[in-house]
Amino acid sequence: MAKKIAVLPGDGIGPEIVDEGVKVLRAVAESFGYRFAFRFGMVGGGAIDRVGTPLPQETLDLCRDSDAVLLGAVGGPRWDDNPPELRPEKALLSLRKELGLFANLRPAMLFEGMEQSSTLRPEVLKGVDLIVVRELTGGIYFGEKSRERLEEGERATDTLVYHEWEIERIVRRAFDIARGRRKRVTSVDKANVLESSRLWRSVVNRVAEDYPDVELEHMLVDNCAMQVVRKPSHFDVIVTENMFGDILSDETAILTGSIGMLPSASLGDGSFGLYEPVHGSAPDIAGQGVANPVATILSVAMMLRHSFGYEEAARAVEQAVRSVLAAGYRTADLAPSGDLAIGTEEFGDRVAEAV
Amino acid sequence: MAKKIAVLPGDGIGPEIVDEGVKVLRAVAESFGYRFAFRFGMVGGGAIDRVGTPLPQETLDLCRDSDAVLLGAVGGPRWDDNPPELRPEKALLSLRKELGLFANLRPAMLFEGMEQSSTLRPEVLKGVDLIVVRELTGGIYFGEKSRERLEEGERATDTLVYHEWEIERIVRRAFDIARGRRKRVTSVDKANVLESSRLWRSVVNRVAEDYPDVELEHMLVDNCAMQVVRKPSHFDVIVTENMFGDILSDETAILTGSIGMLPSASLGDGSFGLYEPVHGSAPDIAGQGVANPVATILSVAMMLRHSFGYEEAARAVEQAVRSVLAAGYRTADLAPSGDLAIGTEEFGDRVAEAV
Ligand SMILES: CC(C)[C@H](C(=O)O)[C@@H](O)C(=O)O
Ligand SMILES: CC(C)[C@H](C(=O)O)[C@@H](O)C(=O)O
Repeated sequence: MAKKIAVLPGDGIGPEIVDEGVKVLRAVAESFGYRFAFRFGMVGGGAIDRVGTPLPQETLDLCRDSDAVLLGAVGGPRWDDNPPELRPEKALLSLRKELGLFANLRPAMLFEGMEQSSTLRPEVLKGVDLIVVRELTGGIYFGEKSRERLEEGERATDTLVYHEWEIERIVRRAFDIARGRRKRVTSVDKANVLESSRLWRSVVNRVAEDYPDVELEHMLVDNCAMQVVRKPSHFDVIVTENMFGDILSDETAILTGSIGMLPSASLGDGSFGLYEPVHGSAPDIAGQGVANPVATILSVAMMLRHSFGYEEAARAVEQAVRSVLAAGYRTADLAPSGDLAIGTEEFGDRVAEAV
Repeated sequence: MAKKIAVLPGDGIGPEIVDEGVKVLRAVAESFGYRFAFRFGMVGGGAIDRVGTPLPQETLDLCRDSDAVLLGAVGGPRWDDNPPELRPEKALLSLRKELGLFANLRPAMLFEGMEQSSTLRPEVLKGVDLIVVRELTGGIYFGEKSRERLEEGERATDTLVYHEWEIERIVRRAFDIARGRRKRVTSVDKANVLESSRLWRSVVNRVAEDYPDVELEHMLVDNCAMQVVRKPSHFDVIVTENMFGDILSDETAILTGSIGMLPSASLGDGSFGLYEPVHGSAPDIAGQGVANPVATILSVAMMLRHSFGYEEAARAVEQAVRSVLAAGYRTADLAPSGDLAIGTEEFGDRVAEAV
């Protein structure tokens, strides 16, 4: 049976990079004898313009009827002044919530030969290979919000709520992931200030008892924001709540160089997942064929691994990316000025070929 | 009239570093003919042990009756498992709230010759001179908290509340500070998710109209966490809410090297302020006379400037620190291994002498 993949190109460079992801999946199908059925859907700003909502019901239905989702990117200045419900990013939040995608996996690793595109010293980058496991459907993102006009002016409120079971399932996921890696979990919270962090910490300690083979440490979020810059190689698996995860996963992403290189997976309870590059829609370079498709192609590798269990194919894609980079090919964002850069399509072709 | 300074040494290395701060203030008094009256108070873990609360009423009264407060550091493993109300850090939160210290100023600058203690490449550090202006008495730190036991397990809640007037006063402070600097304000929020951030952004835009000479940009917190690592020299004044400020000010602190070097000021409406090093109580090296007193001494400089208006003396202290560093003197945390390091006291002596 063919694996059904919902493809949501989105805005800006989304369509260009998603094309290369699909191209690579086609190459995988051919090399490994797998079958994929691609079905396209609208999302983000384009969907707002065409049908008046960033996540049309038919797109949601399409995702629900699929084995995995490949998403490009959403957003652009055109929609920046829209009210919250009519902003492209709203589609991401709704997709996460509606599809139950509570676990966001954001690996940050160094690609050989890419050391010079990081702002960190090469010796600090040595051995960096970490993954941020971010809770994605709870916390302050989804708590009650309000705005009131009082006599002395306006007041705005957001609410950070966590249930024990929400914490438990993401923390277990993190420990499971650590078992397949260097067996070290750093749980990040702000237990000296937040009640939700104190609950978080107690759940982490309880879950940890089931994983005596995994080393656990707790770290305050402010300290963690320092330590990932000071000694990134210290970290293996970082697990944290939604907002801290948003901040820390972007911070760690930049450490190793271009955010154009890094993939993400958003998973639920089963094998279904949504895969997307970490970077945004980059409207300034959209349509020029110069966008870096690596993050999307590596997201495809994550899809092969986490949603389909095609581990060998996943590695083949990752290896193909590595070999194309090792051969010196770069898109413009990574090419040292003066060097000749290749375009989005050519990069995708070369990876597909290598697969 | 003598300026009344409440001195709260606190825990760990607090007493050692505060001694050097006082020493430098005495040198300032002598050189410039100023008069300071020092009065000491208990705070933090030591206060818990002695009188059962991290912030005794008499300490609070002492602060209220002073022109400025010099604080060392609080906390240590000994009190880590205490309930929230009996933790040393609680004293910091209470001091801020009780004394109305809503503006936390955290400058991060590069000291000449210190480039090698940063993990960032020297060329990235060039020109880094930024200040984080953090809201310190509102937001999720002080909103309602609760913990409930439901049928399906526990639930914890924190509340992020901001009033228009709270936002306005900290934002005005940031714009005022920017006027004395490079005239660029970066306001950091998460307006694509949080209602409080949307209020924040609208207040910032309104206040900005009164400062047409200052350039304003808005940045999302996740992006900012990246950009401060990618291009720290881009920033001049960063203004943000309490929790984002906690994270970003620690992240920016580490950029330029040792957090042992960086001061902070917490200010209210008038000239009264609390001054403390950014670093913690470092219980592992307490009592050994090896702690770095630079952050405390530079906090003293901020006190001279912001609370007393002694600009010339403030500069003299900063210049003294710079000259001692330029002469090659370092405490152990900064001395390249193998080099001879000097102790806390000797460092303080040399700065006092230079003043
Ligand atoms: C677009 C925004 C709502 C989103 C988030 O904050 O989760 C993004 O930053 C991300 O990390 O996917
Ligand atoms: C100790 C803690 C409560 C405090 C804070 O989060 O404000 C500290 O991290 C700081 O930045 O002064």
